[in-house]
Amino acid sequence: MDTDGLLPALSALNRAAREASRRMARASTAARNAALHALARRLRAAPEALQAANAQDLAAAAHLDAPLRARLVLDAATLATLAEGCEQIAALLDPVGAMTNLQRRPSGIQVGQMRVPLGLFGMVFESRPNVSIEAASLAIKSGNACILRGGSEALHSNRALIQLVQEALREAQLPEAAVQLIDTPDRAAVGWLCRADIDLLIPRGGKGLIERVSAEATVPVLKHLDGNCHCYVDAHADLAQALTVVDNAKTQKVSPCNATESLLVHRAVAAEFLPRLAALWAAKGVTFHACPDSLPLLQRVTTAAVPATEADWGTEYLSLDISVKLVDDLDAAIAHINQHGSHHTDAILTTHHPSAMRFLREVDSASVMVNASTRFADGFEYGLGAEIGISTDKLHARGPVGLEGLTTYKWVVLGEGQVRT
Amino acid sequence: MDTDGLLPALSALNRAAREASRRMARASTAARNAALHALARRLRAAPEALQAANAQDLAAAAHLDAPLRARLVLDAATLATLAEGCEQIAALLDPVGAMTNLQRRPSGIQVGQMRVPLGLFGMVFESRPNVSIEAASLAIKSGNACILRGGSEALHSNRALIQLVQEALREAQLPEAAVQLIDTPDRAAVGWLCRADIDLLIPRGGKGLIERVSAEATVPVLKHLDGNCHCYVDAHADLAQALTVVDNAKTQKVSPCNATESLLVHRAVAAEFLPRLAALWAAKGVTFHACPDSLPLLQRVTTAAVPATEADWGTEYLSLDISVKLVDDLDAAIAHINQHGSHHTDAILTTHHPSAMRFLREVDSASVMVNASTRFADGFEYGLGAEIGISTDKLHARGPVGLEGLTTYKWVVLGEGQVRT
Repeated sequence: MDTDGLLPALSALNRAAREASRRMARASTAARNAALHALARRLRAAPEALQAANAQDLAAAAHLDAPLRARLVLDAATLATLAEGCEQIAALLDPVGAMTNLQRRPSGIQVGQMRVPLGLFGMVFESRPNVSIEAASLAIKSGNACILRGGSEALHSNRALIQLVQEALREAQLPEAAVQLIDTPDRAAVGWLCRADIDLLIPRGGKGLIERVSAEATVPVLKHLDGNCHCYVDAHADLAQALTVVDNAKTQKVSPCNATESLLVHRAVAAEFLPRLAALWAAKGVTFHACPDSLPLLQRVTTAAVPATEADWGTEYLSLDISVKLVDDLDAAIAHINQHGSHHTDAILTTHHPSAMRFLREVDSASVMVNASTRFADGFEYGLGAEIGISTDKLHARGPVGLEGLTTYKWVVLGEGQVRT
Repeated sequence: MDTDGLLPALSALNRAAREASRRMARASTAARNAALHALARRLRAAPEALQAANAQDLAAAAHLDAPLRARLVLDAATLATLAEGCEQIAALLDPVGAMTNLQRRPSGIQVGQMRVPLGLFGMVFESRPNVSIEAASLAIKSGNACILRGGSEALHSNRALIQLVQEALREAQLPEAAVQLIDTPDRAAVGWLCRADIDLLIPRGGKGLIERVSAEATVPVLKHLDGNCHCYVDAHADLAQALTVVDNAKTQKVSPCNATESLLVHRAVAAEFLPRLAALWAAKGVTFHACPDSLPLLQRVTTAAVPATEADWGTEYLSLDISVKLVDDLDAAIAHINQHGSHHTDAILTTHHPSAMRFLREVDSASVMVNASTRFADGFEYGLGAEIGISTDKLHARGPVGLEGLTTYKWVVLGEGQVRT
């Protein structure tokens, strides 16, 4: 597809997807689950065409780093995991159709709400072809249609995967246009999606992508910006417990967005807490970026402590680095987090109930925690059963987003001939 | 304020409002209600400065039509109604702070959700200065800050009203920057709001305003487009009841967005239903814009029936006009509504349960009704207690939007030292 032919082709794809979204919205639970099982069977079979397509992407990626290449691989184990994911999603409760809060009003009408699919969503993602299947399976389960736009380095793999999805939809007598791939590496397609006839756009990828979409999109966007997560060790913390939780929050895995990037410590416990933490982390290779007051406490124990710059307070390291700052009180901790954080996930370590409650209320983040590792901010840990992403936006869906984030509600009014007076 | 000085001034206002939003979010229920009562007292007192400001706007509006001028008037009766509105909002349950669905997960953490204010919203509105008070009182109750931008023809009145709001906030020891007015007729201010540091933008006004905001805004928008509402009289309708409901839906009041603009009638009952309706409406002066099949049925009874053009199916008349079309079945009715409607409010008149349920599920509108007048689509009729607007968007809030639409949730995690394994 050349750029000249791109827009008409995308418009046609959009119309077909919108039409398919109507059929998906009224499809039975059984049909949608049948499509997911059909997809799982096809993935497990690892058809030759899929393997060949993946080999083609891998050959073209010979110049890339090993980790980037590894993310492209669709071997038997990866496909089995994807198949299992489809089956797990099929087993979840249908999020669509529930009618709630039906109440009789003084006029005599009954008013309630019905949960319904969003309609048609778009997703732009990079590199990992797995995301095609994750997005497609969540769309099918939630009665939506979707338009996917993957990275150019996985184009052949994505094509082959979406082929399987469309076969599975056909087998379940659902419209194959319900899951479509924008089948071109042309970056103009991303700009088009930002203004397409879709109900939601979900960008998943690097900061450049998210910022481009945020600036250009006039359709609603569900976005995930930084995960600059904090742990605050309060004056009333159980320090042994705090040590365990802070250690887990930083070092259990450093690359996820819910890993802690900044540590605030109440001045009253800093001299006791920080040397213990520094001793623990000296062995693990964690580097402290420390404020002037905490630096000497750390440097007594570890060589891996350097002065923090102003930029450190806003940095998402995604590495064995952490910024450290002493604070005078809870107010200062909350103010620092609201100013420098990314409204993702922040935790307080304390045994003092009023401080815990104030932290929960006043820290303006998608997830706020007491005495638990920030690493828990995750759709599966929260019991959502599936996760389409983590939102740092405030509207519609916040934090880990599951199937319900792909639905909305409508008002339902049941009358017996009532009129307005 | 000239255009050169505008942007720095707006940035300063934005920063102050954002800071105030944090204080509002942690203010007690009692303080927010006290501010509402203080505002009600000030409005009832109808201070001279306010009367003078309103007189100034009215003098400048001498060239406007009488109905437009009438909407500007802030006399004792209008102010008393506004005061009563503030007191009613004060009496509502606090929407903020509720913690729900707290459940223990296999990891041992407890996960739930807390309802919290959105933060800072913007509202652009036209003409009626009442809207200043409605928006301010809803913002105060819901723990938000807001930036208001009213029409230039009500600038002096809005200034005086917001002065009262800020006095009331001060009296309740809340930050007066929580409710601010953009104090200039410069239209560049609307463009600025479309990209300001706000959590939600609510445009209220004519189609031109809504379309401008939709095209320019990169902040989330809660918008209300057309109200092209439908009634569908099914083959299984109780025709006497249908006559009453359709009559109310069209003629009880023609200007609101929830008035019916289009009537679909099943072919099997058209010959019986339409002449009865035409006879009823001949007396009321309703003009039918009719499809070729319905036109002769109507013209037997009324002279006020003209052929419909394609444009009629998408028209929101807001007058004593209605489009009429015969349909072959429920599928055709649903398809017509989803294609030509505005996803606002649509009703089916039927005694047939399966048809009622299919209509509820498959019509993609904010409100779907069975045997009730579309005029019920209203925050007060739905029991919301207050209404900031009616949304035809699908995300965050749909249909009538009350206080809850000005809030969001955060995830709350309560642990006892749990870590992720």
